[in-house]
Order: sequence, then structure tokens, then C-alpha cells
Amino acid sequence: MTTPAHSASGLQAFLKESADRVEGQLQSALARAEPGAETLYEAMRYAALGPGKRLRPALVYASAAAIDSSARHRELCDIAAAALECIHAYSLVHDDLPAMDDDDLRRGRPTCHIRFDEATAILAGDALQTRAFELLAGCDAPAELRLQLLQELARASGACGMVAGQAIDLAAVNQQPGLAQLEQMHRLKTGALIRASARIGALIAGADRQHLDAVTTYADAIGLAFQVQDDILDVTADTATLGKTQGADAARNKPTYVSLLGLDGARDKLAALHRQALDNLAGLGGNCRLLEQLADFIVQRGH
Amino acid sequence: MTTPAHSASGLQAFLKESADRVEGQLQSALARAEPGAETLYEAMRYAALGPGKRLRPALVYASAAAIDSSARHRELCDIAAAALECIHAYSLVHDDLPAMDDDDLRRGRPTCHIRFDEATAILAGDALQTRAFELLAGCDAPAELRLQLLQELARASGACGMVAGQAIDLAAVNQQPGLAQLEQMHRLKTGALIRASARIGALIAGADRQHLDAVTTYADAIGLAFQVQDDILDVTADTATLGKTQGADAARNKPTYVSLLGLDGARDKLAALHRQALDNLAGLGGNCRLLEQLADFIVQRGH
Repeated sequence: MTTPAHSASGLQAFLKESADRVEGQLQSALARAEPGAETLYEAMRYAALGPGKRLRPALVYASAAAIDSSARHRELCDIAAAALECIHAYSLVHDDLPAMDDDDLRRGRPTCHIRFDEATAILAGDALQTRAFELLAGCDAPAELRLQLLQELARASGACGMVAGQAIDLAAVNQQPGLAQLEQMHRLKTGALIRASARIGALIAGADRQHLDAVTTYADAIGLAFQVQDDILDVTADTATLGKTQGADAARNKPTYVSLLGLDGARDKLAALHRQALDNLAGLGGNCRLLEQLADFIVQRGH
Repeated sequence: MTTPAHSASGLQAFLKESADRVEGQLQSALARAEPGAETLYEAMRYAALGPGKRLRPALVYASAAAIDSSARHRELCDIAAAALECIHAYSLVHDDLPAMDDDDLRRGRPTCHIRFDEATAILAGDALQTRAFELLAGCDAPAELRLQLLQELARASGACGMVAGQAIDLAAVNQQPGLAQLEQMHRLKTGALIRASARIGALIAGADRQHLDAVTTYADAIGLAFQVQDDILDVTADTATLGKTQGADAARNKPTYVSLLGLDGARDKLAALHRQALDNLAGLGGNCRLLEQLADFIVQRGH
């Protein structure tokens, strides 16, 4: 991570190192089991340490590097990345429950409530959320910074962020919201945590207001680009590439960027968001190469 | 609350004032709805502002008063009490779900998933947990104190506290754990948050280590006393007094203090815990009368 990535293989090495670091942190954060609650911990580890892109951790490290390319903030980034991954993992566990999306498989593995049971999955999700805040509250950083990170995480993940997005998404099945509502849902459901990941990395590295704003705009653009690309892949990629059933969103009668804009319109939107993300990186004080490559990765994945 | 309670009616007035204050705080903390997520907010308010004893808020105020009887910490106690009540409310919403205890009624009202639906109840619980941490992270207190309160709340409510207790409780159905396991389950499931309520009140009022320890021992004793009394009432009170089905725990084949110790044994245990709670209050710097009366209230309720 101290060696900037200058190529696609550099990005892969960076993603691998980010994932390794955050997984090590999660292993230690989820190691100790209360006697009698071993299954709960097993379910928490199953959810947090299962296969995944670790995109949010990568954003923490890459944003920190874009503000200050030294490695001195790395341990704090590890904790913050683990906290973000705990929130992300909890949201997937609860999202997969029968009362929500009712998914049996995630990335080729049984979902948490299938591998364990529903009650354990609910509790594991609950406890992963708590652990995220506990990690940040107890980390080794100046008190004011810790509180800033906690506020970023709480705002992004609660009823003004991710959970609101999930509620809006559930309400949207069999409805036909317009583009503005679709965008608001995505900005909350997945965008808020992606934004928080980038902002938290930048705050850890000491970003001033202007740089924080630039990173925020970058993150909002790639967060939405991620969704647009998801919708494009849902109709263009085959099931094997996708890792989930092709056409699943369309079959659920959920609105998508493709259903609202057409395939060409969605591709134009993706390109515009990609440009917007990159345009915001000029003038940051550190090494922006990783954020650039992450933006490229997001719009190009699956092809 | 500035007037110490010197009688049973004084306690009632204190409980009423505590409840009014925390409900006012919750109203404002849960007021703003994200467009499209109005039902989510309605469910959060339904869960947090439904009927309840507001025991945890009362403990916050009473513990603060036992350390420093002035009213200068009152606004901060309001926030902390609201945060604790958000955690308590979320735990009840998730506990009542079909996959958990599958309860349709709580205090005579439909439970959250009956009044709304399961998905909304899961999300409302999730968002109430987040809001608890958000309230503390953003409150108007010195940064170090805010972090202390956040750590207390996170430790008490997560996989080393309340959620671990719920997991152990679920695993205990149709098993026959001994007294030590039953006590450990209660200390985690309900005791941890009761302990945190008392400690948070004491920390807000500036308790030193020795006073904090005394308040902690007091809270552990009344937390357990609450459960012992619950088990006694489950076999002695009629359904109307209890507000839930008489004999419900016994019918679920869950171990109780009465099933393990007999009714007289459970009553002895209750009396011992009551004494232990009161013995720890001597020497605190403020007005301990409210903590004394809360202990009396807990062991005498339902008769």
C-alpha cells in the first residue's frame, strides 16, 4: 500500500492488500466469544469474513492516500475499514432475510440465515452493527477525530442513510418511481456508506474542508456509477459472470437505470459519472492514482 | 427532578418526570423523516415511544443525582437516556419477531411487526440502534466523556452484552441450564443495559472510580433482582396484573429462578439482592434516595 499502483495489476495488488489488512482486523475484532454465544460469533465471522470485494475498505485506504500518501495513518484506516465492513456485512445479513429480499445465496455461499437460522442471523447483524461503533469509539486516535468518524458512520448507516434507502427500496417493488426517486434510493441505500468510506479515509489523513468536499463528490459519483453498472450488467452479463441470477432485478419488477433510460442511456449516465468522479481528484495533496483506478474498476467490472 | 423523592408518591413523580423528559427527547430525535421513508420513522417512533416503564432513563437520572444532586447535568442525561431507550426499544422489536420470541402483543399493543410488517420492524430496530450511537456521538459534552458514554453503550449492547444474552436465551429453550448459566444469561440480556444506564448517569455527573464501582454493583444487583421478581410474578401474579400470559415462561420450558430455587428460594434470593443493592449506596456524594426507591420499586412491583 506504500507503493502506489500504476497499472491494473497494481490495483489488483492494492485491492488484495486492503482486503488482507481489513480481514486481519476483523479476525481480531470478532475473535472473542462470550461463553454460550459461540454460534453468534461464528455467524458474525461468517457474515463479515465471507467472500466480498472489500470495496469500502479499499476506499478508506485509497482516500487516505489521496490526502496524504505516507503510511502513518494505516493502523487507524484498518480499524475504520473494519467498522465499515461490519456495517456493510450486517446490512447484507438483514437484507437477505426471508422478510426482506429472501435470498438463499450470496456470492455462491448460503446466506447467514440459511447457514445458521433466522434468529441467529438477526442477532449477528445486530451485533455486527454494535461492533462497528465499538471499534471506532475505542480506537487509538484523538478524541475529536474519533467522534467525527463515529458521526460519519452513524449518519451514513441509519435512518437518514442506508436503512432509509432499504426502506425506500422495499416500498418500491411493483411501483414505478421516476429517475429522481431511483437515484435518491441508491444514494441512501449504498451511496451513503460508500461516501462515508471515502470521507472517513480522508478525515483520518487530515483532509481540509475543500479536499473533503472533493473526495465526497468523487465518492457520490462512483457510488451511483456502481449502481448504474449493476443495472447494465443485470441485462447484459450472463449469470456466471454476475454471480447472481441474470435479469433478477427486472424479474422483481424493480425499476432500474436501464428500464428508465434504456441501455444506451444508462451507458451514457455511467460515462458521465465516471468523468465526474475523475474531475474531482485534481488538486488533492496525496496520491490520487488509487482513487482513479477504483473509479475505472467500478465502471469496467463485469466486462 | 430537582426535588428529591421522599415517598412512594415522590418516586412516582420522579418516574413520571423522567419518562416525560426522555419521551420529549425521543420525539425530537425521531422527528425528521427522509422522504419516502416515512413508514420507517413511524415504526421507530411506535417502538420507542410506546408504553413502557422507562426504567433505564430513570436509572440514568437517579444515578446522576446520587453522584451530584444539582440539576446541571440534566440535558446530557436526557440525551443519554434517549440513547439507552433507543437500544432497549430496538432489542424488543427484534426480540418479538417471528423468528425470535414470536410475540404479537407487547404491553397490550400489537408488536411492531404486527402493526407494520416484518421487514419494517427489522429496519426500524436497526435504525433505532444506529440513532442511539448517533445521539451520543453528537451530544454537547466534552469529547472524552462522549467517547466514554459511547463505549459503555456499545459494550453493554453488543456481542459481549445484550445480544450475547439473547443468543444464550434462545439456545436455552428446552435445555436445562444451571443457576450459573441462568444468571450469566440475565446479566447479559437485561443486566448489561441496566448496568450501562446507571454507569452512564454516574459518568455524566462526574463519578470517580470508587463511586462508579458502587453504582455498578448496585445496578448489577437490581438488574438481577428485576429478573428474579419477573420469575416470581410469572407464577404468583394473575395475567391482568402481569400484562402478559401468566406462566408463559414456564410453558415455554425456559428455566427460571423459581424452577431452579423454588418459590421460597427465589424470594430469599430477591431479598439478598435488594440488600446488596442498598448496601452499595452509602458514601456516594449526592442524593441516593432515588436509587434506593428504585430498588424498592423493583422488588415490590406487581404485588
